Amino acid sequence: MRVDMNCDMGESFGLYKMGDDEGMMPYITQANIACGFHGSDPNHMRNTVELARKNNVKIGAHFSLPDLAGFGRREMKIGREEMANIILYQIGALKGFLDASGVALSHLKPHGALYGMAARMEHIADAVADAAEVYGVPVLGLAGTQHEKVYKERGIPFLAEFYADLEYDDNGNLIITRSHSEVDPGYAASRVLEAMRNGKVDSVNGKSLPVRAGTVCVHSDTPNAVDIAKAVSEAINQL
Amino acid sequence: MRVDMNCDMGESFGLYKMGDDEGMMPYITQANIACGFHGSDPNHMRNTVELARKNNVKIGAHFSLPDLAGFGRREMKIGREEMANIILYQIGALKGFLDASGVALSHLKPHGALYGMAARMEHIADAVADAAEVYGVPVLGLAGTQHEKVYKERGIPFLAEFYADLEYDDNGNLIITRSHSEVDPGYAASRVLEAMRNGKVDSVNGKSLPVRAGTVCVHSDTPNAVDIAKAVSEAINQL
Amino acid sequence: MRVDMNCDMGESFGLYKMGDDEGMMPYITQANIACGFHGSDPNHMRNTVELARKNNVKIGAHFSLPDLAGFGRREMKIGREEMANIILYQIGALKGFLDASGVALSHLKPHGALYGMAARMEHIADAVADAAEVYGVPVLGLAGTQHEKVYKERGIPFLAEFYADLEYDDNGNLIITRSHSEVDPGYAASRVLEAMRNGKVDSVNGKSLPVRAGTVCVHSDTPNAVDIAKAVSEAINQL
Amino acid sequence: MRVDMNCDMGESFGLYKMGDDEGMMPYITQANIACGFHGSDPNHMRNTVELARKNNVKIGAHFSLPDLAGFGRREMKIGREEMANIILYQIGALKGFLDASGVALSHLKPHGALYGMAARMEHIADAVADAAEVYGVPVLGLAGTQHEKVYKERGIPFLAEFYADLEYDDNGNLIITRSHSEVDPGYAASRVLEAMRNGKVDSVNGKSLPVRAGTVCVHSDTPNAVDIAKAVSEAINQL
Repeated sequence: MRVDMNCDMGESFGLYKMGDDEGMMPYITQANIACGFHGSDPNHMRNTVELARKNNVKIGAHFSLPDLAGFGRREMKIGREEMANIILYQIGALKGFLDASGVALSHLKPHGALYGMAARMEHIADAVADAAEVYGVPVLGLAGTQHEKVYKERGIPFLAEFYADLEYDDNGNLIITRSHSEVDPGYAASRVLEAMRNGKVDSVNGKSLPVRAGTVCVHSDTPNAVDIAKAVSEAINQL
Repeated sequence: MRVDMNCDMGESFGLYKMGDDEGMMPYITQANIACGFHGSDPNHMRNTVELARKNNVKIGAHFSLPDLAGFGRREMKIGREEMANIILYQIGALKGFLDASGVALSHLKPHGALYGMAARMEHIADAVADAAEVYGVPVLGLAGTQHEKVYKERGIPFLAEFYADLEYDDNGNLIITRSHSEVDPGYAASRVLEAMRNGKVDSVNGKSLPVRAGTVCVHSDTPNAVDIAKAVSEAINQL
Repeated sequence: MRVDMNCDMGESFGLYKMGDDEGMMPYITQANIACGFHGSDPNHMRNTVELARKNNVKIGAHFSLPDLAGFGRREMKIGREEMANIILYQIGALKGFLDASGVALSHLKPHGALYGMAARMEHIADAVADAAEVYGVPVLGLAGTQHEKVYKERGIPFLAEFYADLEYDDNGNLIITRSHSEVDPGYAASRVLEAMRNGKVDSVNGKSLPVRAGTVCVHSDTPNAVDIAKAVSEAINQL
Repeated sequence: MRVDMNCDMGESFGLYKMGDDEGMMPYITQANIACGFHGSDPNHMRNTVELARKNNVKIGAHFSLPDLAGFGRREMKIGREEMANIILYQIGALKGFLDASGVALSHLKPHGALYGMAARMEHIADAVADAAEVYGVPVLGLAGTQHEKVYKERGIPFLAEFYADLEYDDNGNLIITRSHSEVDPGYAASRVLEAMRNGKVDSVNGKSLPVRAGTVCVHSDTPNAVDIAKAVSEAINQL
């Protein structure tokens, strides 16, 4: 069975550049496109949708807390209903460009602080699910969290992610840093093979952890992102 | 033939109130709902879509220049492609809530400075048309302007507006003021009847002007807006 | 000793109106002027500074979390240094208009969620103090909270507030509602007299609580705000 | 007489990087620091003020139209009074950080579209002057434009700029491109020497134009910006 490979895309904003979208696109199968609340703007969304379409890459909405200045990484206290509305707005906005390009919405993925909040807080996972129900597409998230629990209970398709280029701590939590350091492409590829074949990953301290994944995430703003993507893509193709 | 009656709706923002949407909704047939770029936010969009749905009022996207602080009334120099992207983003965002409520998009109407720009500048009317083509719904605008010319040339359905509560100058241009003064409801109703029956309206100086309209616009922030709406609605029902 | 009377002012935004600033100004002695992060904009700030100056009302900066859509009422997770920078930006922006009007900065007051955060979280109270140190003016806050503790420890002058138009729970916490209901002006005035003369206020359940205050806060968006302000002002003048 | 050398600084926004401020700062004498309306944010403003202070570089406010998404490069129709308020807000905000660092405001420079508008439109040059009057510091601009005319008429000190790394057309107008291409450092330096010694510059077509300048502008986002700055700085030191 073929596993997907996803990457956050379209996070440039106006004249500000973020990530090497052109370089990454040939290697991935799912583009999570920013919707303007943590990054991106109408021009970048339009161009990134077109770039994905030309590369036959599936397109998902990568929605966020409303926090452009903080790149969606500062937690905000927001109730379920308001959060669902904020998410629907963003998915809809991306769909404007999908409609213009004649492409279907493939999946959903919360960004940054919202991703972590949905993993821990039931009312936030429910807000994501409220929006997901409208479109009937899978949501990407970490296995074993509120993401999986809430979405599955409500019949929302869930797609577990394995992070090829981030380390896990001994409890299986991702170690997230402000900026991504270079990662050895061969190391990332071997982790993906181990995770996919044997359902295991070594924590940063060498502890073997169980992992499950339907899609492998790589980042576009790691210094050698394209090399990692290439190596991981080749590993996935060997499965 | 029944003429439509439209009103700009959902322009409140956070705690800030604008217009009496609940009061107006029973009298109108088309709600032009703000998309967050000059007014509104995800909560108000969701609630206004639901309010319109419950009142069987058709819903259109009322998109704007990106200018919340200026309520979309400050002209900006923007090229066709960028403008089309800004419009698609907003229509899509509104469609998120239409999808959630199971309602179709009925029409489009540029807001404020963008309305005037589309009336005068071909590249802006073309940008509106670029977005309208994706959805195949009519655009509201002033007859005899670039709106009508460009949309018609490109096969975009066009719906001419008559303004019941605004005065026209001797050249047929709307006289737009920063805030709307009270208008006699009977006067507004009689103007609508004259416009619909005889295709004429008196300018502010008493000059008789030809008018054409498929929809009558009323504003929700005139001090006696609901009384005007009621009178205009009754007038339309007499036609 | 004369006690001050403060009110949040200049919270209108673009065309959106909030509060009756003109009506309130004659009765207060301290205007807390919004700085554009939860409400206000350069035009309203300029006009409100001028309005206060003409009424001989002292002017303070009423800074907020960066959250215009949420009117500064949604908590955000922000570290001390970033929070201090966000506050300095806003105080400075207000000072631009004070400089233009030739008026000195009188005091500081955190708004909304930030006010509550500074009352509970040491690093946020420290961030407020970091900014306050630059200007050497007093900060308004609730007595007996982190506000008082942190500011006093650091030598920042602190001015305790008594809320004339809000109820307290049995623990002395303010009961904050999304919108303010009408309050009997005589009742507000009698509470102020009791608080100032005897250092006591009755909780919403009738429990007598100790209170201390150097300034009495009234709100401009209570339905009968001006009547309350007038009655409270007269009460203060009787002291 | 020593001529100044200025550079736009602090235009990064959140995680988004713009320009090599650390690299440029040792070579310039005036930093024009962005105020959050076209780029920058409170953190970057604080850090850039500190960076300039440590390098003994004078600090000016680089204010803009309110247009973060367009990097202040999209013209907006704004009246004099509103424009002056928008400018005062930004200068004040920067002063918040200057006050915190104990540094004086040195000068003012409009950014992007506003720079061009002030050069052509009297009411915009007047708005800049309205704000400049409050602080009594010089404004940077192009000689022979409304900048110079209006500021001089009103007694606002004016500092003419020569652009070391941009070409001029035959009418003496700057040729501005969306992104800056590499410029030969020696060529930039020789143009500066010619301009300063002989008051002349060759247009892009080789036509000799008169120029006057009290400060030389270099950009931080040209690919080889630091090399250009170094060469221009050395040239200026030879004068």
